[in-house]
Amino acid sequence: MKALPTLRAALGSERVRDDPETLALYSHDETPRSCTPALVLFPSCHAEVQAIVRIARRHGLPLVARGAGSGNVGGALPVPGSAVISFECMQRVLDFHAADRYVTVEAGCITGEIDALARSHGLFYAPDPGSNPYCRIGGNLAMNAAGPHAVKYGVTRDHVLALRAVTGAGEEICCGTRTSKGVVGYDLTRLLVGSEGTLALITEVTLRLLPAPEARATLRACYPDSASACAAVQRVMAQRVIPSALEFMDAHALAAVRAMGAAADLPAATRALLLVEVDGDADSIPRQLHALQEALAGEGLLELQEATDQRAIAQLWAARKSLSPATKAMAPLKINEDVVVPVSRLLELLLEIEAIARDQQLLIVSFGHAGNGNLHVNFLVHPRDKAEMTRARHGLQRLFHQVLALGGTLSGEHGIGSEKAAFVPLELSPESLALQRGIKALFDPEGILNPGKLFPEV
Amino acid sequence: MKALPTLRAALGSERVRDDPETLALYSHDETPRSCTPALVLFPSCHAEVQAIVRIARRHGLPLVARGAGSGNVGGALPVPGSAVISFECMQRVLDFHAADRYVTVEAGCITGEIDALARSHGLFYAPDPGSNPYCRIGGNLAMNAAGPHAVKYGVTRDHVLALRAVTGAGEEICCGTRTSKGVVGYDLTRLLVGSEGTLALITEVTLRLLPAPEARATLRACYPDSASACAAVQRVMAQRVIPSALEFMDAHALAAVRAMGAAADLPAATRALLLVEVDGDADSIPRQLHALQEALAGEGLLELQEATDQRAIAQLWAARKSLSPATKAMAPLKINEDVVVPVSRLLELLLEIEAIARDQQLLIVSFGHAGNGNLHVNFLVHPRDKAEMTRARHGLQRLFHQVLALGGTLSGEHGIGSEKAAFVPLELSPESLALQRGIKALFDPEGILNPGKLFPEV
Ligand SMILES: Cc1cc2nc3c(=O)[nH]c(=O)nc-3n(C[C@H](O)[C@H](O)[C@H](O)COP(=O)(O)OP(=O)(O)OC[C@H]3O[C@@H](n4cnc5c(N)ncnc54)[C@H](O)[C@@H]3O)c2cc1C
Ligand SMILES: Cc1cc2nc3c(=O)[nH]c(=O)nc-3n(C[C@H](O)[C@H](O)[C@H](O)COP(=O)(O)OP(=O)(O)OC[C@H]3O[C@@H](n4cnc5c(N)ncnc54)[C@H](O)[C@@H]3O)c2cc1C
Repeated sequence: MKALPTLRAALGSERVRDDPETLALYSHDETPRSCTPALVLFPSCHAEVQAIVRIARRHGLPLVARGAGSGNVGGALPVPGSAVISFECMQRVLDFHAADRYVTVEAGCITGEIDALARSHGLFYAPDPGSNPYCRIGGNLAMNAAGPHAVKYGVTRDHVLALRAVTGAGEEICCGTRTSKGVVGYDLTRLLVGSEGTLALITEVTLRLLPAPEARATLRACYPDSASACAAVQRVMAQRVIPSALEFMDAHALAAVRAMGAAADLPAATRALLLVEVDGDADSIPRQLHALQEALAGEGLLELQEATDQRAIAQLWAARKSLSPATKAMAPLKINEDVVVPVSRLLELLLEIEAIARDQQLLIVSFGHAGNGNLHVNFLVHPRDKAEMTRARHGLQRLFHQVLALGGTLSGEHGIGSEKAAFVPLELSPESLALQRGIKALFDPEGILNPGKLFPEV
Repeated sequence: MKALPTLRAALGSERVRDDPETLALYSHDETPRSCTPALVLFPSCHAEVQAIVRIARRHGLPLVARGAGSGNVGGALPVPGSAVISFECMQRVLDFHAADRYVTVEAGCITGEIDALARSHGLFYAPDPGSNPYCRIGGNLAMNAAGPHAVKYGVTRDHVLALRAVTGAGEEICCGTRTSKGVVGYDLTRLLVGSEGTLALITEVTLRLLPAPEARATLRACYPDSASACAAVQRVMAQRVIPSALEFMDAHALAAVRAMGAAADLPAATRALLLVEVDGDADSIPRQLHALQEALAGEGLLELQEATDQRAIAQLWAARKSLSPATKAMAPLKINEDVVVPVSRLLELLLEIEAIARDQQLLIVSFGHAGNGNLHVNFLVHPRDKAEMTRARHGLQRLFHQVLALGGTLSGEHGIGSEKAAFVPLELSPESLALQRGIKALFDPEGILNPGKLFPEV
């Protein structure tokens, strides 16, 4: 490895690692694949990141940025011969300004800790991916992550004011402003959000903070089938009170959590569940709850529970929170799709998924952010069962075509990475892809940043 | 004009105009300059726009997109030998989906009419530039326009879901999704928002709609000086209730509207004014008003008026609404700046503006969207007074440097166009500008789209 001495000189040898233990630790993300990198680098500041890129560029060394490795599309998966750049030594808060409602942090800061800092000053950071307690803000920006709150507060993109980054050419760029408005030049900030580490390494981020809601409350609504639950989702989204979360679980998801012993208190006939949250000033909560209760009531409603204190809220959410381990326990491999359709088409999508499961004899568990029409569709399969894997592939193709036919998109929040790259041409036209490749070449002329990700092979 | 016969064949001769009356009508926007184009074209659909670009590309014909020509930085100002593309024959509503809260319209739709359509279904389109009754949505996207509501609802960028466009290479691109989430590929949608007609001609737009607030109310707070008004702005932005508008007028702005007979009911000592709006469910209004009244009260407050019915609200806003004609009447030329600083630095900016006015003997009128720290700074000058024009130039330079020193940006909503292009390098680094020029070359290889705009001359 020719770049090694220069990298050691730039970072100090304790932050340039090629021992097998470290390499193994950084050889995978949340996808069930791995690839051992040649090096793992731990820069401690923007200048060191820039030094790394300049050295890597000279030596044609591929660089794979890594936050917490919690991504589930192989975005942070190393490629052969690559150096992983872990941002975990860059966790400083550089500037926190409660009066102007912004905070500037290094890219390695943990998302949940940024939120906690904001909350200690009466503010909050709205995007709340489920991986909040450990994912890093640089990873969130690179994926344009979102969470249940997105239905009311939007996605990461909507909360990024400015950033500092190093392009694949080793150039520093600063984009955006600390202010809530600014229109000087093209919007490079939002071009980098969602770019999955393929255009530039994000080193510092300025985030917009909002006043923390004073209170929240949760409703749990049980239905006998997806049709009545979807009708309720539509009624919720057709009235004025925007919930701060509107989550859906299908019959298979409920079976999974029931098998884990969670959700024992659900009516036996429940085969579709909605979890609805509202937040705001304390005295607005009863009015909001009332509006949502009216919307949730309707044909099929089996039970409607309400919770306003911390403990009761946690209990209603228990079924949802145990979903991730519950589905993982169902089969050796979970192929995790993340499709979106307009809210009014959600039922059609769910019926199609049922048809796919039936026709292809597959176990498919669906749940997700119903208020955004964003469904996590999990194919639970056995990789050694070749026939089943083939049926799963057919099922995926049919799912994607149906999603696009319904006016939807292939990914709402998980992104493309290495795992979904082949499907991108289903959604993007050759002209659009050509422009995107042109942008990639502009920011990263030698293609050293996260090669093989986001773009389909040519 | 070699392209003329082909253009006539493509559009029909009645929509290809080169008569002097039409050329004169389209020779200027809201800037006090003009340039007669060679042609004015009136395409009636996406396909015709694409045909135009392909013909123009073959003949090296510069194309200047035009909405309503209400921009005030020369964005729609023709360049010599150019064809203006007016979108006024493209005003169809292509798809309106109240349940999924989106509308797809052609780029020539008038912004206020889109909002009116949404409101007739209990929804609204949040961005509300002052030019709403006549500006067109394509122009709004190209400038990333904003209005008083931005403090609560954000800017145009935050409400664009998808678009269809023709690049300078004549290629069609569709970007974004009809859904509220989507992360497939780089975010070309938001790259085109704010690109001022230099990358692609936007033909169709899908906008996010929100539930229309049930009620609104206005507060008008009078202060004896900018210091006490700015302190109140800070108190407002430090508490939880986000106003739907928070507008500021300085002493010179008040003098201007007083001279027009508006604002006769203000206390005589008023030398700074805040107009504050809240909106939401009817029964939330008293609570919101109470919180804002508390924040507005404080040292210096001379008077606090409240209005909840339509007529009284209009009366409180009268002073603000008459500002544009009032300042225009003050001098033959208004140099209209549009700077932004963090809210906590607003007073420093205002004091610096006072110092500039004093040192350079200039009349400067300031008002704007205080909740975003976005100030419209109007230099009122006499173009024939060469000495005054020189002092104004010095004053502008000092203003820009101070804005950047305060952590701000040179434009919050008006953009760059031809008028501000020279100042862009003050804010953007050479590296950032080089990337932006690269993007321009990618989308518009021959540079036929709005040449000379947005970028400083090299
Ligand atoms: C239990 C669980 C729950 C989850 N819930 C959600 C959810 O609700 N919503 C959601 O959107 N996602 C969710 N995810 C997916 C994942 O957490 C998000 O994509 C998250 O944004 C990844 O952050 P990370 O720090 O782990 O990034 P990584 O996985 O390490 O990297 C993700 C991508 O970002 C790039 N990257 C990382 N840092 C930088 C940087 N500084 N500069 C440039 N590129 C960089 C990497 O190269 C890679 O392409 C979940 C994952 C798990 C395991
Ligand atoms: C009284 C008044 C009040 C105003 N108030 C505000 C305000 O509150 N907030 C604010 O932000 N602005 C305001 N403006 C400025 C202006 O109205 C906005 O910039 C508006 O977005 C311009 O729209 P337009 O249709 O008039 O576009 P134009 O002025 O015709 O064009 C503006 C730019 O957009 C480009 N363009 C137009 N259509 C397209 C298209 N289809 N595809 C690609 N490019 C295109 C043009 O080439 C040009 O660069 C105000 C102006 C006036 C006169």
